[in-house]
Amino acid sequence: MSKKSSPSLAAELKPFVAPFRFDGSGAFHLRSHKTNEKGGLDKDKAEKILDANRKRLNDFQERLYAQDRWSLLLIFQGIDAAGKDSAIKAIFDGVNPQGCEVTSFKQPTTHELHHDFMWRTMIALPERGRIGIFNRSYYEECLITRVHPDLLKEEKIPPRLVSRNIWRERFEDITAIERYLSRNGTVILKFFLNVSKEEQRKRFLERLDVPSKNWKFSMADISERALWPRYMAVYQDIVRHTSTAFAPWHVVPADHKWFARVVIGSAIVSALAALNLHFPRADKASLAEFDAVRKALENEGKGGGKKKAAKS
Amino acid sequence: MSKKSSPSLAAELKPFVAPFRFDGSGAFHLRSHKTNEKGGLDKDKAEKILDANRKRLNDFQERLYAQDRWSLLLIFQGIDAAGKDSAIKAIFDGVNPQGCEVTSFKQPTTHELHHDFMWRTMIALPERGRIGIFNRSYYEECLITRVHPDLLKEEKIPPRLVSRNIWRERFEDITAIERYLSRNGTVILKFFLNVSKEEQRKRFLERLDVPSKNWKFSMADISERALWPRYMAVYQDIVRHTSTAFAPWHVVPADHKWFARVVIGSAIVSALAALNLHFPRADKASLAEFDAVRKALENEGKGGGKKKAAKS
Repeated sequence: MSKKSSPSLAAELKPFVAPFRFDGSGAFHLRSHKTNEKGGLDKDKAEKILDANRKRLNDFQERLYAQDRWSLLLIFQGIDAAGKDSAIKAIFDGVNPQGCEVTSFKQPTTHELHHDFMWRTMIALPERGRIGIFNRSYYEECLITRVHPDLLKEEKIPPRLVSRNIWRERFEDITAIERYLSRNGTVILKFFLNVSKEEQRKRFLERLDVPSKNWKFSMADISERALWPRYMAVYQDIVRHTSTAFAPWHVVPADHKWFARVVIGSAIVSALAALNLHFPRADKASLAEFDAVRKALENEGKGGGKKKAAKS
Repeated sequence: MSKKSSPSLAAELKPFVAPFRFDGSGAFHLRSHKTNEKGGLDKDKAEKILDANRKRLNDFQERLYAQDRWSLLLIFQGIDAAGKDSAIKAIFDGVNPQGCEVTSFKQPTTHELHHDFMWRTMIALPERGRIGIFNRSYYEECLITRVHPDLLKEEKIPPRLVSRNIWRERFEDITAIERYLSRNGTVILKFFLNVSKEEQRKRFLERLDVPSKNWKFSMADISERALWPRYMAVYQDIVRHTSTAFAPWHVVPADHKWFARVVIGSAIVSALAALNLHFPRADKASLAEFDAVRKALENEGKGGGKKKAAKS
């Protein structure tokens, strides 16, 4: 990817990113967002874009790793069966796992509950030069914990600190910490996989019907499904209060998995393109040294050959 | 410590805490703070208070641990030979180490530099019910890093993010993160051990003269000493911009080690007294169960005795 191509790349991908990206400017109403959007693509066209994005991502990741300054944090949220796992798998297919780590956050352990609610995610943040993927994240503690207030009790926060404004406070704290991370070199992109209730119904049926998908189904999923409107209201609140230019939310239409992958992949590639990543360049002094070392290695090759010949 | 005694305890210790505590209200000028303050005490009186505080601290720590909700984070900063290590040793003498952990932050490792500057301290935060003592902290990255700008380059932050306002930004980020921690149950107290340049001179000479103290001396200490005015200006800036009600700084007169220990111990005890810590109380249902279990255990004792007698 030459410097020249970056602006045109951003322009090329813009239709798949801009309509779904929220940086806190302007109002946000979840209802106005279609879950079955296709962005004028069909599955074949989408596959081609997905494939091109994979190559770009692979190329950028190598530079990110070599340059060793920026890190990339990708946060995936979405209701059960929204397609988080399969999107991560499809988009990062072929990306060098040495520079890329997925962390899934499930029900917090006793050890994790003994710390502030962001601690378990903070210790898993990607190093410089790396891509960190959070499959669920600290946003769960503003989401499932808000829908099920009993979970808040398990966090063992001293009762006098649990204020009426706790969710606003958490949004404020999360935003401040994301600002801090972005100031120190972490590029943060957040994806909410926005699926319809009808599409979730189909995917649950598939989990019940296909033996290899049975393990993904849990009875708890059904009781959570009954709380759909509550979950959607809370997702809307999260996008409204934690979308910033330094950590934007992407509300990804997710009924068509292939389109969701185009949006996510394009958002990641566009963000990496904007960093102007390049392999560290050797300076003049180093290049002169390289010449000397090159000659020494070449001569050693000749010398080594002679010695071997003499020995045998 | 009964509930009754807490207000009188706070009143008793107030003269040793209030004059040195900064919560961000009011101006702060380091020059107006005497390093050789004794608070009307002599060494004997001070030892008695230190001893009483140790017992109180021990008692509070047991409740903190049993209650398992709050954590206490104590941050110690100060120039070389200000007495950080010896203050920690003297104040926590006899406190159960199971509930108390000291972490010393030295020059950051390569691994630590691959993360945002607060990461290494965040992973070391105390769990609920515990006391965490930071001997130096993330404030070093606003202090030594500011005095020696070359160290900032080692942090590997992408150059375009290193703004002119970087120190203001760090103060803002640190304050936001301290607010977040305090909202989630971490009580934060910060201590700047304020020693005079003359007192440092004496302590350095002692390190050179006493063989068992030689290891504490390093030639680098002398070059840092030459930067005294710069360090003091930066300490003043830190206290001015990061003192809050939820994470106050204490500017501790430290020429007399015994007085420094009175101030620090009194500040810790006062903060713990304000938490109204108590052992978790068993509810009525549990107490009824306890009765049943007690009887069973007593009967088992009789039964067990008989069996043993029969066997022997």
